[in-house]
Amino acid sequence: MKFFEDIEIGESATLGKHHFSAADIKRFAVRFDPQPFHMDEEAAKQSHFGSLVASGWHTAAACMRLMIDHQNAEAARMKTAGQTSARTGVSPGFKNLKWIKPVYANDTLIYRSEVIGKREVASRPEWGLVFSKFSAVNQKNEPVYEFEGALFVERRSG
Amino acid sequence: MKFFEDIEIGESATLGKHHFSAADIKRFAVRFDPQPFHMDEEAAKQSHFGSLVASGWHTAAACMRLMIDHQNAEAARMKTAGQTSARTGVSPGFKNLKWIKPVYANDTLIYRSEVIGKREVASRPEWGLVFSKFSAVNQKNEPVYEFEGALFVERRSG
Repeated sequence: MKFFEDIEIGESATLGKHHFSAADIKRFAVRFDPQPFHMDEEAAKQSHFGSLVASGWHTAAACMRLMIDHQNAEAARMKTAGQTSARTGVSPGFKNLKWIKPVYANDTLIYRSEVIGKREVASRPEWGLVFSKFSAVNQKNEPVYEFEGALFVERRSG
Repeated sequence: MKFFEDIEIGESATLGKHHFSAADIKRFAVRFDPQPFHMDEEAAKQSHFGSLVASGWHTAAACMRLMIDHQNAEAARMKTAGQTSARTGVSPGFKNLKWIKPVYANDTLIYRSEVIGKREVASRPEWGLVFSKFSAVNQKNEPVYEFEGALFVERRSG
């Protein structure tokens, strides 16, 4: 992760792809979202979705996984280049999460992030807050998911 | 689930409790949020958290599970009482999710919901939108999590 001062509003990144297999959709749903259209193809056919769909929280959790993988890859790249990677702090939360379209079994989503704002935090001089829009499209390039997240990022000057 | 017309703003429910074991925290993190302080006690001790903490998305997914269990229990209760249960549709998303405090290994959260608004939807006369605030406190009664969700609920008149 770059330091707070080096992050520019408007910069974007492709976080990666995630394929939603029927098995993975069911495995998540059994633990966290046991609704028939997430667990059983036949029940899903009878539902308003028409076929098996992923839990919205599965779509969200897969995004988190790709964010961490992306951060780790960037940290490794910076280390190789002899640069110091900034630490990231907690996320205080996020806003405006939208499940725009269903995610069906065998869909592959591409997740992206874009920096939409940043600000210093008077009470925590060693950290800055970075606001990003996270989004995903499916293999037909249809937007299916988005939210605006905030994350504390270490300041070089801190 | 009650029909849209029968849901009153201000009504609240206890959805249930969820205990976050160290094993469950790690199992979620390995798949969806592989950060050291979610996966390893020693690494967590060195972090700003001081001990193992659950992924924020684990806290969120556990809430979804309790929501569904609660809905299913209510539907069963209504069936026993000879009442018809309303169908629920998709959630278009939510707002203002906050991870207020860390959830540590062996914390037990109590999740609640409160109806904060409802409105008819001109384009979908068979459904109404119900807005709820979901929240969780830990065993010390400290607020740790909240968000405002929306859900389509069947209208009796639809």
